[in-house]
Amino acid sequence: MQVLTVNLGDRSYPIYIGEQLLSQPELLCPHIRGRQVCVVTNETVAPLYLDKLCAALSDYQVDTVILPDGESHKTLQVWSSIFDTLLSSRHNRTTTLIALGGGVVGDMTGFAAATYQRGVDFIQIPTTLLSMVDSSVGGKTGVNHPLGKNMIGAFYQPRCVLADTSLLRTLPARELSAGIAEIVKYGLISDYDFFVWLENNMDDLLAGDMTALAYAVKRSCENKADVVAQDEHEGGLRAILNLGHTFGHAIETAQGYGNWLHGEAVAAGMVMAADLSCRRGAISNDELARVIHLLQRANLPVKAPSDMIPTQFMELMGVDKKVLDGRLRLVLLESMGKAIITSDIDAGMLQDTFDACKAD
Amino acid sequence: MQVLTVNLGDRSYPIYIGEQLLSQPELLCPHIRGRQVCVVTNETVAPLYLDKLCAALSDYQVDTVILPDGESHKTLQVWSSIFDTLLSSRHNRTTTLIALGGGVVGDMTGFAAATYQRGVDFIQIPTTLLSMVDSSVGGKTGVNHPLGKNMIGAFYQPRCVLADTSLLRTLPARELSAGIAEIVKYGLISDYDFFVWLENNMDDLLAGDMTALAYAVKRSCENKADVVAQDEHEGGLRAILNLGHTFGHAIETAQGYGNWLHGEAVAAGMVMAADLSCRRGAISNDELARVIHLLQRANLPVKAPSDMIPTQFMELMGVDKKVLDGRLRLVLLESMGKAIITSDIDAGMLQDTFDACKAD
Repeated sequence: MQVLTVNLGDRSYPIYIGEQLLSQPELLCPHIRGRQVCVVTNETVAPLYLDKLCAALSDYQVDTVILPDGESHKTLQVWSSIFDTLLSSRHNRTTTLIALGGGVVGDMTGFAAATYQRGVDFIQIPTTLLSMVDSSVGGKTGVNHPLGKNMIGAFYQPRCVLADTSLLRTLPARELSAGIAEIVKYGLISDYDFFVWLENNMDDLLAGDMTALAYAVKRSCENKADVVAQDEHEGGLRAILNLGHTFGHAIETAQGYGNWLHGEAVAAGMVMAADLSCRRGAISNDELARVIHLLQRANLPVKAPSDMIPTQFMELMGVDKKVLDGRLRLVLLESMGKAIITSDIDAGMLQDTFDACKAD
Repeated sequence: MQVLTVNLGDRSYPIYIGEQLLSQPELLCPHIRGRQVCVVTNETVAPLYLDKLCAALSDYQVDTVILPDGESHKTLQVWSSIFDTLLSSRHNRTTTLIALGGGVVGDMTGFAAATYQRGVDFIQIPTTLLSMVDSSVGGKTGVNHPLGKNMIGAFYQPRCVLADTSLLRTLPARELSAGIAEIVKYGLISDYDFFVWLENNMDDLLAGDMTALAYAVKRSCENKADVVAQDEHEGGLRAILNLGHTFGHAIETAQGYGNWLHGEAVAAGMVMAADLSCRRGAISNDELARVIHLLQRANLPVKAPSDMIPTQFMELMGVDKKVLDGRLRLVLLESMGKAIITSDIDAGMLQDTFDACKAD
């Protein structure tokens, strides 16, 4: 097992990475303050791992909430059902909420923990590769609104994260790939050596090799933790983590939440960002081809949906929260392994990127 | 005009107290970062003051949300309607939410500001005496749940508070009295001199004397700010601000939110706390009588509803968030002007207090 510390002053916390962590209560218990625990999971994960986790928590009053599965259920209404259980089971301010699931469960549980009685403790047990490398670090919690993704939420840090790579054995291949999209992102924005490592180890990752997965999770979390420690509340630098996300959110919104997986939309969005970066001369055609090839090897989409026209993209990007006073800001590549945030965007080049990156 | 600073490190903010502040945009504007403002108010306050405020904000994009009036509307559902306006009017992360109203509007607007795009700026313009002396300081925001009051929320500080005492001219007498209940509380928990001042100036307050009101608002905010600065997130000391609130919440819940005003329930609750303190020998019978007399002069209830039996109180206090691991903790008086928090409560004395404090 490896331990990584996310350094955020008095909100610092450890991420435990390894196999079979779920059945090691000695990892969790030191982070549980009171005698009450509420495990929030979803209907897909519950039959696989809920009993195992509850067995590890036999010393506590454990209540469970099983949410419907999928991004389309990441709503205020589903979120509020967590409070119904907390209150009817009389959870007090020393309770601990444990998120057992992917990003949707983590985001909603974290936001419930941030707001139940104005804040209670929170532990994350991500069950997807995407949530291990993305929502494990950063403290972003929240829900979607019909008019925008993640529009309602809070910054709220967990007490610890348990990234049990054994849980990935039951993860569908499509979701493994979606997680790899975010992993590739860290290589692109801040860690060229890691990008090269991914080119050399993609086959092992796709085959579910535990050592390769643990390394990729750790390196991703380290990269993200470095950025978040410098900018916890997304004042500036942190926005580089959104490489591919502005385009990706537009795709997700246009297709309806949940039809494209988040990682899939980010993959296509990163190709668009890389394409635009290439047109600006920041990366070469060969480098752009390497980005596309690596994502293709991971079975990820590298084109936007064929029915999305540029005006639809622009409109959907207009309500994105990365917009500052009406100006479009994008995260682009300055070079392989280095991202920049810029609002100096040539409309013609952007148009060319839309044209070049649309599926036939 | 007087200015009081609430000292909370990088979350410090000023409270401006005086007459005719609403028409002085130079007070507000330095605290508005972007070009968008969303004023949230209610259907009672809107016809009185919304136009005046919007006129002072003519340099900004101003959108308005008018909520239904009353504690019964302090729900997740009503709260979420604020996001509908923010998103449909495309408010970005630099927007400022302004709460123009009493505690309900302030709590819901503050909680919306705390969670819109994970936190945007927030300004409070309290329009009731209660909200001027209570929710102006402390950063408690949130909504009620059918199973408990203020169970969902966040600690979130405003950028500034405008306590315009002129607005109190339109406040119904019953609500003025409800505000006075919280003012008396500050005298009881931390400021005996202020309690004596209130005994000497109660008639002026009830008559709406602006000088007396401004003094009472300032002194109350100072007392609360002292406590909050020492314990922003209610780890310990801050709980003394809940004198009378555990009993009071039980009354509010039993009677249905909104039938008793919050201040009225707190008044009866403070009498119960003072009665129990007297039985413990902490204050004398004469001092208890002074507390009751002062609240009576302010036209406040000093008895619990006649239909509330002790078991109902106990049950309702059991879900109160001031309960720690199942033990009942209460704020009581150690002496006039000094509160303590204790879980060392004699069940027999508590029973006697229930009996003594029930209306005929």
